[in-house]
Amino acid sequence: MTYKSAVISIGNELLLGRTVNSNLSFLGAEMALLGMPVDYSETIADTASAILDSLKRCWESYDVIICTGGLGPTEDDITKVSIAEFFGKELRYEDSVWQHIVQMFRHRNVKIAESNKRQAMVPEDFEILVNNNGTAPGLHYQEDGKHFFALPGVPFEMKLLFKEYIEPIVLKSFNGAKRVEQRNLRTFGISESALADMLSEKELPKGVHLAWLPQLGRVDLRIYGTEAEGLRVAEEIIRKKAAEYIWGTDDEEPAEVLLAKLKKNGLSLAIAESCTGGWVQKHITSIAGASQNFLGGVVSYANEVKRDVLGVSQKTLDGFGAVSEEVAIAMAKGVKKLMKSDVSLSVTGIAGPDGGTEEKPIGLVHYGFCIAEAEYHIRQVFHGKRDIIRHRAAEAAILHLNNLLRERLK
Amino acid sequence: MTYKSAVISIGNELLLGRTVNSNLSFLGAEMALLGMPVDYSETIADTASAILDSLKRCWESYDVIICTGGLGPTEDDITKVSIAEFFGKELRYEDSVWQHIVQMFRHRNVKIAESNKRQAMVPEDFEILVNNNGTAPGLHYQEDGKHFFALPGVPFEMKLLFKEYIEPIVLKSFNGAKRVEQRNLRTFGISESALADMLSEKELPKGVHLAWLPQLGRVDLRIYGTEAEGLRVAEEIIRKKAAEYIWGTDDEEPAEVLLAKLKKNGLSLAIAESCTGGWVQKHITSIAGASQNFLGGVVSYANEVKRDVLGVSQKTLDGFGAVSEEVAIAMAKGVKKLMKSDVSLSVTGIAGPDGGTEEKPIGLVHYGFCIAEAEYHIRQVFHGKRDIIRHRAAEAAILHLNNLLRERLK
Repeated sequence: MTYKSAVISIGNELLLGRTVNSNLSFLGAEMALLGMPVDYSETIADTASAILDSLKRCWESYDVIICTGGLGPTEDDITKVSIAEFFGKELRYEDSVWQHIVQMFRHRNVKIAESNKRQAMVPEDFEILVNNNGTAPGLHYQEDGKHFFALPGVPFEMKLLFKEYIEPIVLKSFNGAKRVEQRNLRTFGISESALADMLSEKELPKGVHLAWLPQLGRVDLRIYGTEAEGLRVAEEIIRKKAAEYIWGTDDEEPAEVLLAKLKKNGLSLAIAESCTGGWVQKHITSIAGASQNFLGGVVSYANEVKRDVLGVSQKTLDGFGAVSEEVAIAMAKGVKKLMKSDVSLSVTGIAGPDGGTEEKPIGLVHYGFCIAEAEYHIRQVFHGKRDIIRHRAAEAAILHLNNLLRERLK
Repeated sequence: MTYKSAVISIGNELLLGRTVNSNLSFLGAEMALLGMPVDYSETIADTASAILDSLKRCWESYDVIICTGGLGPTEDDITKVSIAEFFGKELRYEDSVWQHIVQMFRHRNVKIAESNKRQAMVPEDFEILVNNNGTAPGLHYQEDGKHFFALPGVPFEMKLLFKEYIEPIVLKSFNGAKRVEQRNLRTFGISESALADMLSEKELPKGVHLAWLPQLGRVDLRIYGTEAEGLRVAEEIIRKKAAEYIWGTDDEEPAEVLLAKLKKNGLSLAIAESCTGGWVQKHITSIAGASQNFLGGVVSYANEVKRDVLGVSQKTLDGFGAVSEEVAIAMAKGVKKLMKSDVSLSVTGIAGPDGGTEEKPIGLVHYGFCIAEAEYHIRQVFHGKRDIIRHRAAEAAILHLNNLLRERLK
């Protein structure tokens, strides 16, 4: 038997375009992982008639209904009254909910008026899903094997309530619902089609599937299935075949992986940037604890800074141009010396929209790398607008250095 | 008479959570600006039955229906066939559409097979909305004063088709629909409630409204109404009252406004960052042409870099700590000297998650500024997680310098 799920998103701000409905994306992805993909979704205004109409349509046709929004301290009257009316239940005062609200307010050092007691009204026969991150609880009702959930619209609160309550209830209640396990292998330096040519589901254990998720400038490879052991075997097979392209797993960030490698080997890093203008260093310093291995860097936007601060000779600048292998290497050597680091990287390129020539087109980037006494150079051309070029060039800088270190520290 | 609008979003990827429905946000905001806010929206799978059910529900109750998605080269059969079936129309081959597709493919240097001719099938009595940015045209049908539109789901194509075709049709067809004009005044350094206390709709010309749009760490003030003259007068009144807080208009970015000011006054800029780790410079260099006034900067993450590269004395570092007024000023002076700039700014702070003390809590940031020979210092405490603190601290650095320049260059 196939069960059907629907999501109702309540909120004028969604219809007025003030908020993007990221709750639907979260619920869609999570329900799909439980084998209960969302079949249908409505976005409605926070009026009683809209809520009643929507509940009527969805309760008739779906086995699981998850409703988000309309449970904040100002609007929850309408939503809760409408839900109670639709299911033919009385609202009753629930003291545990009131005590929770009082505690939340006390914690925030805010006084609460008695008039707020209406927030503690709950439809009878509904289960209360305790919200440890906000005042409004989630609600759960079941009848004839169907389940209705109402969650607050604040994404952070909604997500935790889904994980804590809805996921286990769905897994327990619906025959065939089963958590799909997944593993993301993050690749760099190979295209989606080349990866697809290299790997095939046929070589993997039965029940394991592959999905290619293209990111900006790289591809994530998702392995999924319901059996953990099959996934483990599949990952091993894939890692053997594509080892040189896989740099990370699941949600790991390029900067995180690079910093871990530097830390493990006790190496310090310095960075010189031109076209990326600080973006590489922003990535590196977004990781807590980066200061253990990252010393600092220079944004050498003007040629004078390349010369006077990084020590790139005027002759090299004049002879090869600021965007060249020679300048990239000199920048990397210069920042390494200046910061007294073990490892350094540099980026110089043409981000556009102006400044491109036939020989040096917009998107051309030269990277320089120093690892101890060794020097490396990589040339790459990126396509797209200024921001895309900068974005891709900054991330590639980190992933190139990560590759070089892996090779060298083997 | 009040008209009602609905949006239908077709696409499994929306229900599976692979894509966030930004098209709905765009259409919601645009239709509200035409005085025809979206009342209801459905997100449905791309199957014939889902499309037929949805059309039935919406065509019955709404005056304008905008349907997005399901018109790509692979899935458009189902959508177009279902639309034609619902409205009781035959699909006919439309040569102009075919010629357009052929041309688009030729432009991309891709061969097109004759089998693609089905893409040129269009329901009879439907108006073709020529899509200059993709192969699939938009479609328009009207009956009994109701309007149905189908647009491709690619946001870029969808938005241009909305602007080019749907907006004028809606304005022409519905009595009372009128384009709302709006103006965003971007403020910094004042809270939403303080702004609300200072300004009131009552003092503005009739028909002009205010909305407060809180951004991370600052507030945008939206003035809107249907009369351009009223808006102009309102803006003048507000600018007089809140002059010191308004730094930009509409979509202007902080870095853009700062760079324009530097350019106008022929001033060069250098930047020294610690806790923001390159983020300030990333913002500055995201603006094309930044190189005219931005020379470069230093990310001095390690204290040794503050000392050896920026010339902050060991005594100052030891005596006051890296996060202090004294070090901030020394960093600003150091980078100004190093880069030979007219103006400089520095940021040093504690982004967390570790490193806070009672005296110097997580979120504490000291800024230093040099404008010619003058020095300035600002101390600020930000709240939130590491990334939020860094985000706000980086943007505030730019807006603080912008304020100081405005004061000084008066």
